[in-house]
Amino acid sequence: MTLLIVGSVALDSVKTPHGEVKRALGGSATYAGIAASYFSKPRIVGVVGEDFPKEYIDLMKKKKFDLSGLKVVPDGKTFHWAGSYDGNMAHANTLSTCLNVFEFFQPDLPLHFKNSDFVFLANIDPILQLHVLEQIQNPKMILCDTMNFWITSKKDALLEVFKRSHVILVNEGEARLLTNEDSLIHAGDKLLELGPKCVIIKKGEHGAMISSRDDNFSLPAYPLRSLKDPTGAGDTFAGGFIGYLSSQKRVSPLEIRRAMVAGTVLASFNCEEFSVKGTTSLTSRKINKRCAEFYDYAKIPKLGV
Amino acid sequence: MTLLIVGSVALDSVKTPHGEVKRALGGSATYAGIAASYFSKPRIVGVVGEDFPKEYIDLMKKKKFDLSGLKVVPDGKTFHWAGSYDGNMAHANTLSTCLNVFEFFQPDLPLHFKNSDFVFLANIDPILQLHVLEQIQNPKMILCDTMNFWITSKKDALLEVFKRSHVILVNEGEARLLTNEDSLIHAGDKLLELGPKCVIIKKGEHGAMISSRDDNFSLPAYPLRSLKDPTGAGDTFAGGFIGYLSSQKRVSPLEIRRAMVAGTVLASFNCEEFSVKGTTSLTSRKINKRCAEFYDYAKIPKLGV
Repeated sequence: MTLLIVGSVALDSVKTPHGEVKRALGGSATYAGIAASYFSKPRIVGVVGEDFPKEYIDLMKKKKFDLSGLKVVPDGKTFHWAGSYDGNMAHANTLSTCLNVFEFFQPDLPLHFKNSDFVFLANIDPILQLHVLEQIQNPKMILCDTMNFWITSKKDALLEVFKRSHVILVNEGEARLLTNEDSLIHAGDKLLELGPKCVIIKKGEHGAMISSRDDNFSLPAYPLRSLKDPTGAGDTFAGGFIGYLSSQKRVSPLEIRRAMVAGTVLASFNCEEFSVKGTTSLTSRKINKRCAEFYDYAKIPKLGV
Repeated sequence: MTLLIVGSVALDSVKTPHGEVKRALGGSATYAGIAASYFSKPRIVGVVGEDFPKEYIDLMKKKKFDLSGLKVVPDGKTFHWAGSYDGNMAHANTLSTCLNVFEFFQPDLPLHFKNSDFVFLANIDPILQLHVLEQIQNPKMILCDTMNFWITSKKDALLEVFKRSHVILVNEGEARLLTNEDSLIHAGDKLLELGPKCVIIKKGEHGAMISSRDDNFSLPAYPLRSLKDPTGAGDTFAGGFIGYLSSQKRVSPLEIRRAMVAGTVLASFNCEEFSVKGTTSLTSRKINKRCAEFYDYAKIPKLGV
């Protein structure tokens, strides 16, 4: 089934204890799209400036992105984020954020995108997320992401997005900020009351959990021994998650668990290299091998005492 | 097979957002012993004062503790800890620690304890842990716990304990303090280099992971909706872990995974009530029911993409 991804396409300058890149390919739609490309031909809606390197466009085309919704603004400059990580790289330090053409991003969908079955609303202004939702005709699944900034500055619009989404994706801090609950279990319960069918809480090195009326599930992160750059891990997770689901006949609790594994495994590849290098050249074989390793790692035994 | 537990037997005064208890039964050997009692008849080595309530002794006897190694000091006062928890109760605030008779604890084993097969050295001075190890004749498994205080004040003795233990048990902070590694995966690898066969890192609400030469495994915490008092959760985990193993024919990677589940499930019961109330009145049926729920919660699906 068809998959639409709406988010940022960016240039990232990132420094970690393991190295540094400048103006590398980044952005939530990019990370999610590349992860999803192993399951689907993602339709992308985003905006870049005229400075956006042709090689990055070529890479996206090679990954079978439908770029009909990627606007290139003449004389515009592409969204540029600069950040660094220390220690266990659990948190990014933002050095600069130049929104550039992204400041005036208006996610108008090409006509043939409006029938998309699966939609990932990456972290953008919730007003724009609502604008996308108004154009979508009959979605099977809306997955939305957000960030602290929108939780504090545009909560009403964000709550409307949550109400109209099937799955919401937050990290630990966002879950606590939204619910005033310290316990993530209680936070998940409270977020469900906001309207979505499922709530995914991302916990970085501790993995992720999903709460829904049908199923509750927690899984660890893949045990990475070579973490180089976590930038884009959350978006890669999201792209792997929804990409996997868009390739299945139906969305069942079991398939949602499998999608969590797909997202976890794709995110682990992402963290092993800077920018999108860890995920651009994967094969089904490599992905399946890591899925099998992850299964062995996290397999819970039955126990009778 | 026989199981020996050496640690504190204490009176705890604890305040959490859900209530308060004063001079309730506590101590690492108590918590671990009660958890282990569902699998074994734990031999206890500890010390209390003459003020230690008879009802607590009766409770231990009811749980089939062999109390030959519990010394009662005439006119002595029992170790008393007072603490409180806020928010998500991830960390205890110690209000007072009166070691009392525990300050002069000398863990001399009764003769018939010296042949114990499984030994849990709970968190005590590593010099005393070594003193126990010297009395043990032919152990099948030594599990040791510790705390930040010993890591900074008696590191040499502690490293000797680690070298002579089969399984070491640390929390996230202790793992990082011992290894200077931010990544828990790397910390686990480094701790293995200190000599033990297995390293368990406890992560509280994020569950636990175990690293060994044979197996690496991570499991979430049980999704508790009624967390009242986490005091003793780590010791209950340890008691469930080693108690389960002591009841099995052999220690294999699969049985170690099962022991992690047993520890996790016992610890979840512990956190639902103050003091030892959550774990004293369990049945195999109740434990098995929660083990089955936990299996359903954490079961990883296989995935081919």
